[in-house]
Amino acid sequence: MATRPRIFMQEVAPRDGFQNEPLFIATEAKIALIDALSRTGLAKIEVTSFTSPRAIPPLADAEQVMKGITRVPGVCYTALIPNVRGAERALACAVDEFNLVMSVSETHNLTNLKMSRDQSARAVMETVKLAAAAKVPVNVSLSCVFGCPMEGDVPEPVALDWAGRFIDAGVFGITLCDTTGMAYPTQVTSIVEQFTSRWPTSTLTLHFHNTRGMGLVNVFAGVRAGAQRFDAALGGLGGCPYAPGATGNVCTEDTVHMLELIGYDTGVRLPELIDCARRLPKLVDHDIPGQIVKAGDRSTLHPVPASFEATRARAAARSP
Amino acid sequence: MATRPRIFMQEVAPRDGFQNEPLFIATEAKIALIDALSRTGLAKIEVTSFTSPRAIPPLADAEQVMKGITRVPGVCYTALIPNVRGAERALACAVDEFNLVMSVSETHNLTNLKMSRDQSARAVMETVKLAAAAKVPVNVSLSCVFGCPMEGDVPEPVALDWAGRFIDAGVFGITLCDTTGMAYPTQVTSIVEQFTSRWPTSTLTLHFHNTRGMGLVNVFAGVRAGAQRFDAALGGLGGCPYAPGATGNVCTEDTVHMLELIGYDTGVRLPELIDCARRLPKLVDHDIPGQIVKAGDRSTLHPVPASFEATRARAAARSP
Repeated sequence: MATRPRIFMQEVAPRDGFQNEPLFIATEAKIALIDALSRTGLAKIEVTSFTSPRAIPPLADAEQVMKGITRVPGVCYTALIPNVRGAERALACAVDEFNLVMSVSETHNLTNLKMSRDQSARAVMETVKLAAAAKVPVNVSLSCVFGCPMEGDVPEPVALDWAGRFIDAGVFGITLCDTTGMAYPTQVTSIVEQFTSRWPTSTLTLHFHNTRGMGLVNVFAGVRAGAQRFDAALGGLGGCPYAPGATGNVCTEDTVHMLELIGYDTGVRLPELIDCARRLPKLVDHDIPGQIVKAGDRSTLHPVPASFEATRARAAARSP
Repeated sequence: MATRPRIFMQEVAPRDGFQNEPLFIATEAKIALIDALSRTGLAKIEVTSFTSPRAIPPLADAEQVMKGITRVPGVCYTALIPNVRGAERALACAVDEFNLVMSVSETHNLTNLKMSRDQSARAVMETVKLAAAAKVPVNVSLSCVFGCPMEGDVPEPVALDWAGRFIDAGVFGITLCDTTGMAYPTQVTSIVEQFTSRWPTSTLTLHFHNTRGMGLVNVFAGVRAGAQRFDAALGGLGGCPYAPGATGNVCTEDTVHMLELIGYDTGVRLPELIDCARRLPKLVDHDIPGQIVKAGDRSTLHPVPASFEATRARAAARSP
């Protein structure tokens, strides 16, 4: 049997999911969930964000969570780092990797980060230097690569040139984020092909939201174009302030289910991942958008109804 | 500009959606919705089912709906026909087309239709003869082509041979149905390619459910393999008795939104379709799974926040 191509799943629910939850999730519950996720075969877990507790109260316990989890060898424990102050806090917790973020849309960056893109890029570069001194690898997540909810399409060369600036500065990885679910499959193919041909040795991650129902089809287009790493959130957690009621990040267990069916090796044990997802409705106190947790893996069969043999006998008696 | 390839959208919410609703939807409301759908550019509408009112009470008003709608030239008004008695009722209402149905899974056919597949096939053939005499075109919808919730995978040659029996009997169209949302994209590609190479002149429709989140990715795989006709339900209505809480049919407006973005011409005016979908929560008295109706078309932009200019000025004052 041929070796199945490897896909690396990167769990973002503890950060991108929980930061959007109105209720504060108890620190111990976060740690227990992350510890369970650590044992499912995920490649990476974004544990928290070292943002100001005032800016994002749901993640005010960043240090406690980062220090409280039991690290499984082989799993990369990353965190979102907004600035040099956050980087120092993260270093004190020995995170495996920094995930820095800015938007390729000027309007979105100003709205979300209160800085111009140039100002954000300088802040990112400052943190990159700090990380290099501390020998911590850096990934830069670029928001709105597939569209900005206020500007509309961001020209592909503009988005890719921002990636190039950070790759030139020595970051090992770039995440192209579909922050508000505007990506569509032919666009994904185009952008991934351009990225991989310009930077074949950079580590590319795709980060999709299911806001317009296209999360899985964008993952499909992404793997077909050669992407190997995907952010996803357990249960499809995560929201979008521009689309109240819409679904969140592409769902980890739904993504793993699809990728394994079409012949990829995600390294993830789906039943254990589903067990983790089943904890979520109680943790977040609402229904979750993920489908597999409700419908089950397609290989989970249902028993025939109790009346089945009687039905069959009646049918057989009616005609040959 | 090159002509975009044409895709034909076939709306099934009035039949496959409404038959799963616990509340009876008033006949006048059904007629008003179908009349609105008729003006959106859909190619076909499955109006109702001429089943026994005792078997499917939500569609007990089949005659009144079929006779009450205002037909728009160019739109095909089809109905599900379970047997010769249903065919006679449908002929009295002058339906444009018969949609006959059986399952390619013996267990599912016995459970659902209380007959063996051979018995169902004979009943279908009887109706095909009646339709031929009345000069009404016939489509046969085959359930469980992509898997049976009780048997598991149905071998592809078995599913396709059932299609072949009906094509040989003179039906113009076959619908391959993913009745309980078990299809996945590589399987869709395989089955569509086999179908179109064996029967290049037959009219193929694909009918997907979004039970496991793969509705749109299966549509994507289907169009890429050459399929041109898709069943879909407004708002993603429709359910699955084997997956309580799971989503229903692939959503018409989400499908149109994706297909137009990737370069196909569905002939459907999306804003008018979204207006139809907005009526549904009130009609069915629950939230609907469709995403576009909540998130909007990706081209619908959001205004910048009221504080935007002040934010920009503060950022500009901080650094060049």
